[in-house]
Amino acid sequence: MAQPRPLNVHLQSLISGYPNRTALIQEVIPALLRTLPDIAQALQKTSVSRAGSANSFGDDQLNVDVLAENLIREAISKVPSIATASSEEDPVEKRAYLGDVKSDEQYTVAFDPLDGSSIIGPNWTVGTIIGIWDGASALSSTSTPREKQIASILGVLGPRTTAVIALRMPGTEGTCFEVNFTGGNIEVIRPNVKLSSTPKTRYFAPANLRSAAENPKYLELINHYIAQKYTLRYSGGLVPDIFHALVKGHGIYTSPVTEKSPAKLRRLYELAPIALLVECVGGVALDSTDGTRVLDRAVRDTDERGGLVCGNASDVEFVRERLLGQ
Amino acid sequence: MAQPRPLNVHLQSLISGYPNRTALIQEVIPALLRTLPDIAQALQKTSVSRAGSANSFGDDQLNVDVLAENLIREAISKVPSIATASSEEDPVEKRAYLGDVKSDEQYTVAFDPLDGSSIIGPNWTVGTIIGIWDGASALSSTSTPREKQIASILGVLGPRTTAVIALRMPGTEGTCFEVNFTGGNIEVIRPNVKLSSTPKTRYFAPANLRSAAENPKYLELINHYIAQKYTLRYSGGLVPDIFHALVKGHGIYTSPVTEKSPAKLRRLYELAPIALLVECVGGVALDSTDGTRVLDRAVRDTDERGGLVCGNASDVEFVRERLLGQ
Repeated sequence: MAQPRPLNVHLQSLISGYPNRTALIQEVIPALLRTLPDIAQALQKTSVSRAGSANSFGDDQLNVDVLAENLIREAISKVPSIATASSEEDPVEKRAYLGDVKSDEQYTVAFDPLDGSSIIGPNWTVGTIIGIWDGASALSSTSTPREKQIASILGVLGPRTTAVIALRMPGTEGTCFEVNFTGGNIEVIRPNVKLSSTPKTRYFAPANLRSAAENPKYLELINHYIAQKYTLRYSGGLVPDIFHALVKGHGIYTSPVTEKSPAKLRRLYELAPIALLVECVGGVALDSTDGTRVLDRAVRDTDERGGLVCGNASDVEFVRERLLGQ
Repeated sequence: MAQPRPLNVHLQSLISGYPNRTALIQEVIPALLRTLPDIAQALQKTSVSRAGSANSFGDDQLNVDVLAENLIREAISKVPSIATASSEEDPVEKRAYLGDVKSDEQYTVAFDPLDGSSIIGPNWTVGTIIGIWDGASALSSTSTPREKQIASILGVLGPRTTAVIALRMPGTEGTCFEVNFTGGNIEVIRPNVKLSSTPKTRYFAPANLRSAAENPKYLELINHYIAQKYTLRYSGGLVPDIFHALVKGHGIYTSPVTEKSPAKLRRLYELAPIALLVECVGGVALDSTDGTRVLDRAVRDTDERGGLVCGNASDVEFVRERLLGQ
């Protein structure tokens, strides 16, 4: 087994040939990644299930969200090339870097500091979702995430702290790799994460399953997976559910949208970063509201919502046909 | 919110009136609990998903299992009142304490050092399961777990390290409490864990769902939960799936057994400790092979297997009727 490569060596190899990406790989990505062990530590120390009552739990949980938010904001404030930031906790794009060093590069960071609030109490794996966009805003009425979002990070906060990073210069196929954090270092432990074209086991993660009570197509789809002997893994956390597919090489995640069950996932903070990762590992990510690719529609507002169908390409095509009727 | 109580104070209050339980609460339970932060640390340091291939992954995963096994064996070897131990990794009962101090009390420990091997790679929450039995063996052809197993521990190894402990002196109702580990101390953060009789949200965790392809009753049960708008949470790890119900106050876990899908859960290392916990929080745990209560049948051999239906009493009764036809 090859020795893990240091993060900076791996990132350098990925951007050779792309001018003006030095700050991205030397400052932006490392600074954001370095927040993850700190968020993990904050989560470790907070007794979120101490109270045992719904109300007090809500308060404690809020505290962890705010701690994660603050850790990421603090890191961002020191990076000259991060022009703008917004988050699910504070969804207004504003000036991010607070110093006076000038940078030739200019990025926007949009993040969900701690995704999976319903499973923090039961001590299940949760995560951090970060998108990195070219320019001083992620929002546009014309440019799509495919053109503007160049990297995304999924921080996986479980028994270990790991992260997957997707990086795609406009017009290229993109790449995805996994890092871990040991003794203060960030090491690349899987340099090339890909979904498998010949998976041994097929997995499904049916989100918003309650909606199948009123959605016969979704109910039929679920029964199809059972009949086809797909293996069920569904944590209810977007990060662990997506990361499961990246480790196993297979997974189909379905979060349909109907009239009675409206779109909930935020396009800027959840859908776009997840979609970039899924495409970089060879998969497909659709917005289930209309079946378009998540990355092909411009994000005009930080509060836009959507649904999600993503995973291995042939499985997504099957869902497009059966669930979305396309 | 009340200040968390130190473990020893809480344990002392639980056994007042029961003679000859001093070693149990001063040595056995604390020594076993103290292994959990060490297992968590071993898990944190091991890059189980580094290799990315099934074979190498298997090897790495084995290492973490062995590390956990060794940590627990080492702790046990120093406790005079632990006469005998066996584990899923080494399922032969043998002498456990290796010193020469005599104890008035005599216990047997049976444990699964690291449950949830399929989800270690994706960095999902896993756990440790420990049963503590009266006397020099957990095995018997006549005495049941209800008579012999007096305590069990579920270690929950996720973003935090927590544990729930069930304690039941023979003939009493029993109690269950949750602890966490902060700064080297063990503190009781929920002194009285109970399932709710009026849950706001109802959860289901359908294990071995692939078997529903050949089991119409199981398929009907799943469709019932969907129609009744139960919320799906299923990690595929016994510890996080059971702990989820203990935190939310509701959950029904179903792992049926059929001819094509034989019993897999070990009665000594998985079913009996889980069943004690579930009963101590007011729930019911059946062996799905025959619908008997897990704790009412003697464990004669360390390798005996069974199935599991457990959770809130009324939900278990429904499953007994619909799935087991009783």
